[in-house]
Amino acid sequence: MADPGPAVTAALRAELALRRAELLAVDPRLAADADRLADFALTGKQLRPRFLCWGYRAVREIGGDVVAGTGDTDGTDGTDGTDGTGAPAPVVLPDAVIRAAAALELIQACALVHDDLIDRSDTRRGGPSMHRAIAKSHADAGWSGESDHYGTSIALLLGDLALAWADDLFTAAAAELGVLDRALPPWRAMRLEVLAGQILDVRVGVELGADATAQDADAMLVNRYKTAAYTVERPLHLGAALAGGGDDAVGLLRRYGAAVGMAFQLRDDVLGVFGDPLVTGKPTGDDLAEGKRTALVALARAGLADRATELAALDAGLGRSADPEDLSRLAAVITGSGAPDRVEERIRDLTAEGIAVLDERAAGDAPVLAPAVTRELRAVALAMTTRTR
Amino acid sequence: MADPGPAVTAALRAELALRRAELLAVDPRLAADADRLADFALTGKQLRPRFLCWGYRAVREIGGDVVAGTGDTDGTDGTDGTDGTGAPAPVVLPDAVIRAAAALELIQACALVHDDLIDRSDTRRGGPSMHRAIAKSHADAGWSGESDHYGTSIALLLGDLALAWADDLFTAAAAELGVLDRALPPWRAMRLEVLAGQILDVRVGVELGADATAQDADAMLVNRYKTAAYTVERPLHLGAALAGGGDDAVGLLRRYGAAVGMAFQLRDDVLGVFGDPLVTGKPTGDDLAEGKRTALVALARAGLADRATELAALDAGLGRSADPEDLSRLAAVITGSGAPDRVEERIRDLTAEGIAVLDERAAGDAPVLAPAVTRELRAVALAMTTRTR
Repeated sequence: MADPGPAVTAALRAELALRRAELLAVDPRLAADADRLADFALTGKQLRPRFLCWGYRAVREIGGDVVAGTGDTDGTDGTDGTDGTGAPAPVVLPDAVIRAAAALELIQACALVHDDLIDRSDTRRGGPSMHRAIAKSHADAGWSGESDHYGTSIALLLGDLALAWADDLFTAAAAELGVLDRALPPWRAMRLEVLAGQILDVRVGVELGADATAQDADAMLVNRYKTAAYTVERPLHLGAALAGGGDDAVGLLRRYGAAVGMAFQLRDDVLGVFGDPLVTGKPTGDDLAEGKRTALVALARAGLADRATELAALDAGLGRSADPEDLSRLAAVITGSGAPDRVEERIRDLTAEGIAVLDERAAGDAPVLAPAVTRELRAVALAMTTRTR
Repeated sequence: MADPGPAVTAALRAELALRRAELLAVDPRLAADADRLADFALTGKQLRPRFLCWGYRAVREIGGDVVAGTGDTDGTDGTDGTDGTGAPAPVVLPDAVIRAAAALELIQACALVHDDLIDRSDTRRGGPSMHRAIAKSHADAGWSGESDHYGTSIALLLGDLALAWADDLFTAAAAELGVLDRALPPWRAMRLEVLAGQILDVRVGVELGADATAQDADAMLVNRYKTAAYTVERPLHLGAALAGGGDDAVGLLRRYGAAVGMAFQLRDDVLGVFGDPLVTGKPTGDDLAEGKRTALVALARAGLADRATELAALDAGLGRSADPEDLSRLAAVITGSGAPDRVEERIRDLTAEGIAVLDERAAGDAPVLAPAVTRELRAVALAMTTRTR
């Protein structure tokens, strides 16, 4: 199966061109903002669209215990075809599935743009964050008023637009596939979960008096909803729902997604402290500069429970400075706490747990998910959780 | 026809209770935020839901040239019934239409919460704005970090949640009525238009060098999309679409809505400068304190073209002070410019234009819209544009 990425990019580009024309019909001055949003949405890594396509294929490329490709392009044909030689036919993902996948990049555009407002992040994807870029354009144009507030305001509204457009694109695609009843519940759940995770992320950061164990639990809760459900579990679920998958297939994909998604976020937490800026696109130690309450930090605090001086240095240093030397000292304290080893262990356990789910069989030893797809999901679980960026 | 308001409130309350339960399943600490959003969404004036219901009835209560009520509650029955005595049967709006109407209060919750962030408004609906209320709860609880930024962050995310929930509710209702194909295009258009209007509102405020005529045109453009389309035109269109209305009916309702909606915003502009805080729920002169570039202000600048001192005082005073004496002086300058008379004239013209549309007839002199409903739309046009709050 070829990478669906280019097809997703093409579908997203076509959709954004239509929406740009609608904005310009309101007023041509909206062109710059439409272009900015499109450029941002089109430079994603497309992780979520890929999981949606895997979820679709995991259901569609299986028929009883026979592995087969399906060449139908309208997505409504439940039969599994072979090319007549007994070998699986090449899989062609229906256009509507690709468009549904593209909708996830629009949700992600909203999530990142709004998250960067909340985190007051200056950088994203190796460049300035949306609100910073817009603030700069305001300043460069010599417009009146405060550049920063202008950037915040327009970025907020462009995020809203991306969220509304995501819904439009996904709903139309699911309706075209004739599976609205199955596809809307996980779509609703995904949006609620990622927003609930974001609210919790803000909320748990401000409550005082939490001990390290409670902080770890909170970080894993945020991780579960803000990352795992949103990035892996629900995209797989959406793909399976678009394919008409049953409870068994959806259940396995979700369990895989929850475990691997959490491991993915833990890897991100490690990279946020120790990552190379040339590969992450963010400054080294950016999470420490922002004072993010990650599981890594919670485990570091737990590991320093009887080393009061270092614990105090960690608590005092988080979110206080972006100076590389300060961040390097904080990173050393975290290393000394033993937390990185504990996080690596957790990443390995969760990844193994997710991969093990893929091998579960239905009654009669029939595979629940298409073996060709579970092979890919096994490889991606390892790639995502051992990545360096 | 009884006021649909109580039914809309009940539908909204039921939906919000379901979504609250979903949030609490993620984490019980989300209860306070869920309640805050629900309380806010449930205290709207429900102008948009009412227009949606009028749009539905304007189509449904007509059959050829016979005016009739329809008692069908599933919304899929295209026939027009009477009670057998020749008098129109009582109209019962299908539950799904009420739920679609309730979705507009969720969009509005998002629009107001995000607008108050952009305008940095402290007050809304006679109380603190969402971000101010949340900032206060942060300060009262003695949590760590900046209360203002906490309020901004949570309010932003609650606005996103309201936008996502609005889509969920509207899409499910339209699907239940079996009219997704007709209802989604105006739904898509409405969200794009209101966001485009909000972006333009921010955008036109910062560009320098615009003369008064261009400012007036820009203010009316923002008015057209941010208020008129979103508040009157598209809600009527949505109601007509849910009822299976044809192009003629939709066309008349949209023209009425665009004209009356713009007159409504002009009345709001007048109240934003001269309104009584006891009835508007906003301080007198709030628009002047915020420096809003309304049509009223643009017309005042035009009227002061040859009175340089007063024009300079107006330009210098906008958005500079919330002191009642300063605002009162600015209001007097605007009155002296003759702009309020010109705005009143424009309100009268637009209202008359909107009302005249309602009387247009199809070939054969058949009414396009149900006369019982056009009578109500005539009355509401006058009430909305002559209101004091």
